Amino acid sequence: MENFADRLIATIRVKNSPVVVGLDPYFTLIPDSCKQKPLTLNKDNLAYAAYGILEFNRQVIDIIAPFVGIVKPQIAFYELYGYWGIWAYTETVKYAKQKELIVIGDIKRGDVPSTAEAYANAHIGEVQIDNVIESPFSTDAITVNPFLGTDSLLPFIQTAKKNHKGIFILVKTSNPLSGEFQDLLCGKRKLHEIIAEKIPVWGKELIGKQGYSAIGAVVGATFPQELSILRKIMPAAYFLIPGYGAQGATAKDMKCCFNPDGLGAIINASRSILYAYNLSPWKEKYGVSAWKEATREAIIKMNRELEEISGMT
Amino acid sequence: MENFADRLIATIRVKNSPVVVGLDPYFTLIPDSCKQKPLTLNKDNLAYAAYGILEFNRQVIDIIAPFVGIVKPQIAFYELYGYWGIWAYTETVKYAKQKELIVIGDIKRGDVPSTAEAYANAHIGEVQIDNVIESPFSTDAITVNPFLGTDSLLPFIQTAKKNHKGIFILVKTSNPLSGEFQDLLCGKRKLHEIIAEKIPVWGKELIGKQGYSAIGAVVGATFPQELSILRKIMPAAYFLIPGYGAQGATAKDMKCCFNPDGLGAIINASRSILYAYNLSPWKEKYGVSAWKEATREAIIKMNRELEEISGMT
Repeated sequence: MENFADRLIATIRVKNSPVVVGLDPYFTLIPDSCKQKPLTLNKDNLAYAAYGILEFNRQVIDIIAPFVGIVKPQIAFYELYGYWGIWAYTETVKYAKQKELIVIGDIKRGDVPSTAEAYANAHIGEVQIDNVIESPFSTDAITVNPFLGTDSLLPFIQTAKKNHKGIFILVKTSNPLSGEFQDLLCGKRKLHEIIAEKIPVWGKELIGKQGYSAIGAVVGATFPQELSILRKIMPAAYFLIPGYGAQGATAKDMKCCFNPDGLGAIINASRSILYAYNLSPWKEKYGVSAWKEATREAIIKMNRELEEISGMT
Repeated sequence: MENFADRLIATIRVKNSPVVVGLDPYFTLIPDSCKQKPLTLNKDNLAYAAYGILEFNRQVIDIIAPFVGIVKPQIAFYELYGYWGIWAYTETVKYAKQKELIVIGDIKRGDVPSTAEAYANAHIGEVQIDNVIESPFSTDAITVNPFLGTDSLLPFIQTAKKNHKGIFILVKTSNPLSGEFQDLLCGKRKLHEIIAEKIPVWGKELIGKQGYSAIGAVVGATFPQELSILRKIMPAAYFLIPGYGAQGATAKDMKCCFNPDGLGAIINASRSILYAYNLSPWKEKYGVSAWKEATREAIIKMNRELEEISGMT
């Protein structure tokens, strides 16, 4: 099996798109047409919600798969429906992989080493049960939180290395107050720069044939002034960039995330694609009954905007 | 419903114990006697593991409930078995609450505000599905990661306030390299001290009748020199202290976590209680067939050690 970064780049080239579609189900925004069948199954409420989410996700994946190669389910929106939600997460990952999409589990886990190992095995590794081996979630990559330090990240990095998976480590997040701790000056450098400087160290043994590492970084697009600095500190790291669309960042804000080869960044949008029917201009043009057309046009538009700025070769 | 800190203190007083038993299932260490019935149910492998874990947890809870009032399932060890594992987590929480134990979900979640809200609602809040309300996990408190800043914590704090639940925010973790980022000097103070100084601000609206806040802190017992400083910075915060037993900290190391009233700290042990049969002196005395006696003696011994140092009134 190939290095994760090489697989990622191959997918980006095939689809000619650095877009990641965030599969963040908001149950109230899911069209009723996806909820009809689950409702008749007459299961409990959490199961009904989970079936509705899964049905919506499958339809979204069918719409977007011709245009993008990467999806990112945010596990919080599945955990919200208990173990039934986690079932929907698992089945969503499975369906996306059947459609040959790369799946990044946005889980932001982080814990002491023995616990981190359990998370790593759950999401990108294996678990032994008596004499059998299972891969519970089997995502291609996950996001992780570095607050606990290098020893808490090594189980993730080692599991990624063993199984040809990827890790995106939080460096600078996209929320308005991310600077409160992440921008604190420790000596002459900000905390997030100190973490960024570790990324090449953590990632050096997982560099693929294209020169990029399977250990990437999460960098919010809402702080463009930081992006150029971080690009220089971590030249071989793939950036996973949230914040496009609903969180307010534009394509132009992201130009500096890309290396001169047009690679090095993947850009996530969630609500602005999934619920495009609820946003102008599609709201007026289509509305919820034609939500699929709205989603299709939104993803094509996003691809076009990013093509202009990435200059991918 | 009472403030979480008041409920916590009432439980500690009834049981005369500040101990938290960490329900961290290691499948290979679970006695075979707990796996027999699940095996005959002939479900898939992850379901078999989940049923075995739940059976073990129920028996552990029955043994420890006379001696301790608080349990802390670490969700990573359930996630390891996929959605079936999360089912076992849910059922474990339910059983512990039936036995009137306080349940702290050790989930260490942290994310941007809209996502943090989903996590908060999942674990200590509610979710609306069409016209019904569900509480998916319904734990009494959870642990959270502060790396993303105040805006990422507010959904947890607000949900805790609304539902009379508790939050333990990571301040200084127990792993060997926790100091790598948490001890960085930002001006004259360490990062974890800066976070600790926020705890009274975040917790001020959730102070109970006993003077403690429902917003507590996770502080590793493996760094006793830091504990006294942190105790002074956060006098009204309950400390959740991991590291006793398997991670190497002793009762004496924890004396400075307690306030003069003998309150202010709860001490977690996981492996040293659950798998006491596998440790000296119980390994030689009992072995796995009498694992329940080993666990019972281990919890009584831990209670006695902590009684000497907490000086609870």
